[in-house]
Amino acid sequence: MSKKVTLHEALNILKNAKNVILVSHVSPDGDTLGSTLALAEGLKQTGKKVTIMVDDVISSTYSFMPGIGEYIHPQKGQHYDTDLLVVVDSSSLDRIGIVEECVKAPILNIDHHVSNTGFADYLWLDDTATATGQMMFTLLKEMQVDITLAMAICLYVAIITDCGNFKYSNTTAASMRAAAELLELGVEPNLVSDFIEMKPRKNIELLCKVLNTLTFFDDGRIGIIEINQEDYNKDIDTDSFISYPRYVEGVEVAVMFKAVEPEKTRVSMRTRWIDVSKIALSFNGGGHIKAAGCTIEANLTEAKKQLVTKIIEEMRANK
Amino acid sequence: MSKKVTLHEALNILKNAKNVILVSHVSPDGDTLGSTLALAEGLKQTGKKVTIMVDDVISSTYSFMPGIGEYIHPQKGQHYDTDLLVVVDSSSLDRIGIVEECVKAPILNIDHHVSNTGFADYLWLDDTATATGQMMFTLLKEMQVDITLAMAICLYVAIITDCGNFKYSNTTAASMRAAAELLELGVEPNLVSDFIEMKPRKNIELLCKVLNTLTFFDDGRIGIIEINQEDYNKDIDTDSFISYPRYVEGVEVAVMFKAVEPEKTRVSMRTRWIDVSKIALSFNGGGHIKAAGCTIEANLTEAKKQLVTKIIEEMRANK
Repeated sequence: MSKKVTLHEALNILKNAKNVILVSHVSPDGDTLGSTLALAEGLKQTGKKVTIMVDDVISSTYSFMPGIGEYIHPQKGQHYDTDLLVVVDSSSLDRIGIVEECVKAPILNIDHHVSNTGFADYLWLDDTATATGQMMFTLLKEMQVDITLAMAICLYVAIITDCGNFKYSNTTAASMRAAAELLELGVEPNLVSDFIEMKPRKNIELLCKVLNTLTFFDDGRIGIIEINQEDYNKDIDTDSFISYPRYVEGVEVAVMFKAVEPEKTRVSMRTRWIDVSKIALSFNGGGHIKAAGCTIEANLTEAKKQLVTKIIEEMRANK
Repeated sequence: MSKKVTLHEALNILKNAKNVILVSHVSPDGDTLGSTLALAEGLKQTGKKVTIMVDDVISSTYSFMPGIGEYIHPQKGQHYDTDLLVVVDSSSLDRIGIVEECVKAPILNIDHHVSNTGFADYLWLDDTATATGQMMFTLLKEMQVDITLAMAICLYVAIITDCGNFKYSNTTAASMRAAAELLELGVEPNLVSDFIEMKPRKNIELLCKVLNTLTFFDDGRIGIIEINQEDYNKDIDTDSFISYPRYVEGVEVAVMFKAVEPEKTRVSMRTRWIDVSKIALSFNGGGHIKAAGCTIEANLTEAKKQLVTKIIEEMRANK
């Protein structure tokens, strides 16, 4: 297990290193990228040699972030020398990909995930933080470096991507106050969200196809959308699609079906009141009460039939 | 012109009235409703008789707001007695509909619109406030009433609806800090946004039809959607639809065409860089540099041809 450290101990560990590698997690999101970029800038101001790494492709969504072009993608078999490896916003070691093999150095992990596995030598964890970006902002203020507009933008992106622009339940008064301070440093929230909301054309084209499948069952209490196998493309982010049936008046359970293979259908569910994790569990899936998922070993038509029947049963049982 | 008053003078005016009518503006939004409801609750705590009015239908979106059922819809020809009429979040008198005729009393106007016409006897205006709800929160704290969870929810709705949930350019550090305080009073931002995002089924069905019309011109730099006359329905809110072409990668100008009549097409434009207000002006419309609109006296096909040609010309001229 990691030695748990405080903010000030983490600061000391950083102070004692001359040469630092920072790594963001695979499937990089705004929080891991923004937190890494801001810390990198702060450490550079204190005279350190800083390298930032990620073992994955960075979505073009984030190409506007100041400093994003400085990421190195580590090469298999190559070794990178450093005094300290800082693992940013990762709850487990597999989240850093091949960096685990390429960098041999003491690890400081800065993270906010309650599920953190304690893999690092030193762990500064704050699971009450909305985003690692919020912790990083506190750290940089303690470091007494100049928080430039570029850093402020990165920290703002970090916070908003982890709390759905202040719409998720993990939004707190503290993260809102941090965001307020970042606005005072010059961040323009409208410009940031203009960039964050940009999507590839194929994404909107798929959304359009998927909305055409919107159907309702049980007098409009169940709203479903589907992606057939022909349209299924794992490179298109479809996470937000379920919000369309979810936010239709009268819908109590929203479901998205994805035909990932001829006899394999992936299911996501969102609900207002019944426990969809129970339904997911009965198909060997899991999740939370209001958001759950499973994979049904059947074609889309059959999977839909089975699941809708199950949901109706569950709604009747809980009336 | 109104006598401009400060927060404390406004408080005194309220203190001196025993019987108060509060009025929200027509086409009521979250800010006018939330500000009115919160102030009504606060005034009731101080022992006043309070009536809330609006001369319009309230969208079902807001039916979750505590106290919303208490609104009175004034009847033509009827007269309502009161010591003071508080006009909330309205910049001009026509925004209160027939309340102007039904209520004869001194008017206190509480508003944040820079365009305020100064119609009231007393005006407390803060055009730096993101929302009237933010002003109302300050006022209620000064009144030293108990800000209940119900009131906090109303104030939170007021703030987020006026700043697009902290995405618009009018979002400020002050409004974010106000929101942070409201979270501390128990507001759950995820529950509020679940309600606010709810839409009638016909809205999503129209979105689906409209997305099917998504086309691109000039190598993807112009993205357009259209609503043909058959699908046009003035009761369906289509304001957000333009964000679909707008947020497609590569699109510099997004346009929505609405065939409101056989030979009349309404046009909305959003842009990243060229001045669309100039284009709108050339069709006798207007607006801002990045968001403008006009009405073209032609059918949809013809209007589209004229406007796309004009946009391409403008883009070429500004390269």
